Amino acid sequence: MIPGPTPVPEKVLQALGRHPIGHRSKDFQDLVEITTKNLQWLHQTENDVLTITGSGTAAMEAGIINTLSKGDKVICGDNGKFGQRWVKVAKEFGLEVIKVDAAWGAPLDPERFQEILEKDVEKEIKAVILTHSETSTGVINDLKTISSHIRKHEKALSIIDCVTSIGACNVPVDKWELDIVASGSQKGYMIPPGLSFVSMSQKAWQASETSNLPKFYLNLKSYKKSLSNNSNPFTPAVNLVFALDESLKMMKDEGLEKIFQRHIKNQLAVTEAAKTLNLKLFAHEKHLSPSVTAIQIEDIDAEKFRKTIKNKYDILLAGGQDHLKGKIFRVGHLGYINNRDIISVIAAIGNTLIEQNKISTEVAGEALKVASFHLSET
Amino acid sequence: MIPGPTPVPEKVLQALGRHPIGHRSKDFQDLVEITTKNLQWLHQTENDVLTITGSGTAAMEAGIINTLSKGDKVICGDNGKFGQRWVKVAKEFGLEVIKVDAAWGAPLDPERFQEILEKDVEKEIKAVILTHSETSTGVINDLKTISSHIRKHEKALSIIDCVTSIGACNVPVDKWELDIVASGSQKGYMIPPGLSFVSMSQKAWQASETSNLPKFYLNLKSYKKSLSNNSNPFTPAVNLVFALDESLKMMKDEGLEKIFQRHIKNQLAVTEAAKTLNLKLFAHEKHLSPSVTAIQIEDIDAEKFRKTIKNKYDILLAGGQDHLKGKIFRVGHLGYINNRDIISVIAAIGNTLIEQNKISTEVAGEALKVASFHLSET
Repeated sequence: MIPGPTPVPEKVLQALGRHPIGHRSKDFQDLVEITTKNLQWLHQTENDVLTITGSGTAAMEAGIINTLSKGDKVICGDNGKFGQRWVKVAKEFGLEVIKVDAAWGAPLDPERFQEILEKDVEKEIKAVILTHSETSTGVINDLKTISSHIRKHEKALSIIDCVTSIGACNVPVDKWELDIVASGSQKGYMIPPGLSFVSMSQKAWQASETSNLPKFYLNLKSYKKSLSNNSNPFTPAVNLVFALDESLKMMKDEGLEKIFQRHIKNQLAVTEAAKTLNLKLFAHEKHLSPSVTAIQIEDIDAEKFRKTIKNKYDILLAGGQDHLKGKIFRVGHLGYINNRDIISVIAAIGNTLIEQNKISTEVAGEALKVASFHLSET
Repeated sequence: MIPGPTPVPEKVLQALGRHPIGHRSKDFQDLVEITTKNLQWLHQTENDVLTITGSGTAAMEAGIINTLSKGDKVICGDNGKFGQRWVKVAKEFGLEVIKVDAAWGAPLDPERFQEILEKDVEKEIKAVILTHSETSTGVINDLKTISSHIRKHEKALSIIDCVTSIGACNVPVDKWELDIVASGSQKGYMIPPGLSFVSMSQKAWQASETSNLPKFYLNLKSYKKSLSNNSNPFTPAVNLVFALDESLKMMKDEGLEKIFQRHIKNQLAVTEAAKTLNLKLFAHEKHLSPSVTAIQIEDIDAEKFRKTIKNKYDILLAGGQDHLKGKIFRVGHLGYINNRDIISVIAAIGNTLIEQNKISTEVAGEALKVASFHLSET
């Protein structure tokens, strides 16, 4: 129950364990063709969606270094570990960063983006970089509104980390006119880590024509060129592509609306049950990520708490990162998660709190009832 | 029978198909610890060997961009598609390239490296970049001798593409004092593509202190720092690490000497049988790679020839790359290849030549006998 690697369906594991085939073979080209089409379906876009062998960070870095040039001015949204990371990447590549930050647990304020973008009459800002669902805090940022401000600016590209939002909640890339969207396989995709994805708009490709940052392995133009032949510029993780093919088919069978609803159900079950258990949600309540819930527990070391749950129930929860270590734990509820998983984690948390004399059995029972109620919503 | 992805043992596929675990868990840390030790064993080194999620090209790029700075002078050996690629990477990152080239099929001349390095009394050359086993042509370069010339220079680092040599033939990293050695999982390692490896000497780490090329995902210092805690800076391809663990154990059970001998046996069986079939080896005969054999067939389109073999016998051979397309085909014989595989490919090639009235049945039989003779050598 961590926010990635997420549980992998048996079918997908079986596909993963197939014998690899040549990556220049017709059979593999057929796979590239179908997975690319299904990735576009998942992204709700007609843009190119490229598959990279690497982590989500590689995909975000690719988005940044393929469209920008040294000295370019960018806005970076920073309200958690991943927002912070994109600031670091931008600075490493010599970009001039205007930081829009918020406390960890709070959402980014769309109006601050609006103000800065409106003031930029010289159109010096080349991109807005931010994280949609901030895995470190359980906050989902209001990407729809922020994106509408970026569109009004006309010049700036949006470069969005959708690692824990794609495949969990609605990210209509074309409708919201998102230029660059990065995601990773071990999240909503329900496959093991190792692949990442970059969706590139026409505007993003235009920007790539003047980008002067050096790149080779992450040069997206090479990927685009190969993709026109359903191929890859470098040897891809063939077996993870087998898994991707299988998982995308499962997702198509379920349908986008049902996937999104399932994640909302799971999130509500976890967050409402947590509150019933007298636990505090770390993220602002109007901005809860459908993928991961960060929970604060007072007077208890969160690291010890999650260790107890791991040892007794074999349920792995994620810890707090950086200054939040020991202060929060995080429950991942994205990807291949069903009602049993949710009810198990609530039961495990409830029982552990009972044993530590933090709550009564009645409260624990009430929390299960609350979770169960939300899980039965259609 | 292509030079990668190579056949994967059943055991390794089973490990690959296990359910992923958290990459920050103790269980995964244990895996990182043991695989790192076994990678050092395979590299015959006490240097750090880092595991990257990405292709062999990512590993080579990492070696180059972590140790060099813009404008640095480097020698690039170029006698095939991969040598050519490292020239491109070096130029992309603003390095000044002195090219030592040889015709495709010919080996690099160690004396040319010696001359250039000896003349460089100002010690302006910062690195020598080359490919050990050139997969595109089936040539193995004399790395031992070239490396001895690099060592005499004292300043220049060696950055070596050992993608199809590590795990197939002797690459004693410490003995030959190789600074940076890159390799990829889908070759001698016997696992599917998606992981690559970089061995870094102390001298390479020293150079990394002054390297000014921008990098984030491929910043090897982050990998080194995480490795001190048996961890990874970014989410690694967990399942491929399961597979790596299994394959390295198999390799240790077999032993380095036996692995190398098996590859020599396979190479001799293929090359001697090919000659018996009146086919011409593309690579110079004293520089045949133990991993891959490139074969020239006159009056026959090599692409059609390998398609016939694929359709009739379900044996996939590799084609020629770039200007060699249609002129050569390549037989991979590295990794998890046994006598049956070798004898099958010789039989398939022989039968196809008989059917095209190129050879007599007697010659085909003779080729099988020759292959068989080499396979029985201990």
